[in-house]
Amino acid sequence: MELIEKTKESTLIFDGKVVHLYCDTVTLPNGGESIREYVKHVGAVCVIPVTDSGDVILEKQYRYAVGETLIEIPAGKLDSAEENPYEAALRELREETGIIPDELIELGIYYGSPAIMGEKIHMYMARGLQFGKDDLDADEFLEVFTIPLQRAVELVLQGKITDGKTQTALLRAKMMIERGL
Amino acid sequence: MELIEKTKESTLIFDGKVVHLYCDTVTLPNGGESIREYVKHVGAVCVIPVTDSGDVILEKQYRYAVGETLIEIPAGKLDSAEENPYEAALRELREETGIIPDELIELGIYYGSPAIMGEKIHMYMARGLQFGKDDLDADEFLEVFTIPLQRAVELVLQGKITDGKTQTALLRAKMMIERGL
Repeated sequence: MELIEKTKESTLIFDGKVVHLYCDTVTLPNGGESIREYVKHVGAVCVIPVTDSGDVILEKQYRYAVGETLIEIPAGKLDSAEENPYEAALRELREETGIIPDELIELGIYYGSPAIMGEKIHMYMARGLQFGKDDLDADEFLEVFTIPLQRAVELVLQGKITDGKTQTALLRAKMMIERGL
Repeated sequence: MELIEKTKESTLIFDGKVVHLYCDTVTLPNGGESIREYVKHVGAVCVIPVTDSGDVILEKQYRYAVGETLIEIPAGKLDSAEENPYEAALRELREETGIIPDELIELGIYYGSPAIMGEKIHMYMARGLQFGKDDLDADEFLEVFTIPLQRAVELVLQGKITDGKTQTALLRAKMMIERGL
């Protein structure tokens, strides 16, 4: 079955600093038409830092869009669409936690809300952590804390960590480390 | 440390069918100001259906916002902010796959992109599956397929399943079933 929807007409509704909102008319696989409202985004990175002793470094951050303080792994936007995601991951990890890792392992792509959000997040696991000083943006406020990976995995299974990229990254890190990676 | 950002001024930029875009001025924890661009959303549900023999029922669906056909678990929007998520999960599962489950187990909340997206997704695991006939919306096109849970978990670990809610749900289902849940 052909599943692809083709662009018939594309309209930029709002061209913000972070959110670029479009409302497109698309041709459906059966020849019909529909409207797709969606957000374009420059792209982002996230990193789960795991220490040699099996702890992870997480953050508490207030998320205005959901009105809650969430537990998350370090993450941030690309500086531009051209920025290398690996370099961006090193930068965000250092800025938010002060960590410089020996190694960043690629975990692949995470689409958080692909029905309406074009944001492509590149996910990494950081190992061999050297701890230095953080360097937060002026409008960034977060609390960094350390917790055993196993304890964080239990919080995911209990539904107590609600950020999607953090859920995925914790469970992947647990399974990968169990396999000796 | 106080992390909460308070609303100073809220402006509705676009009031669409699915996307409700706001641009708010907020007061930061240090008394400064910043702008938050974010999307309000009615809320959604997703369901990972697992058979007694250890298969999962997944879908291939074209996602216009990311320009790719993704592998996903069944999911959909609430009909209204008042709709009971449990009932919505039963409805979406039946509409997209024809499945009526004996049991829906609550897995908690998934926020896919909380930096800019208010969408709250209620996640469930369906067990005791009865298979009937699907009933798709007129503008919904998807291919339903069955795959062993273990094989789907490997696809996540290899970075070949990129939808975040599907990554989380597959890894959680795997861990929960290993624990006899």
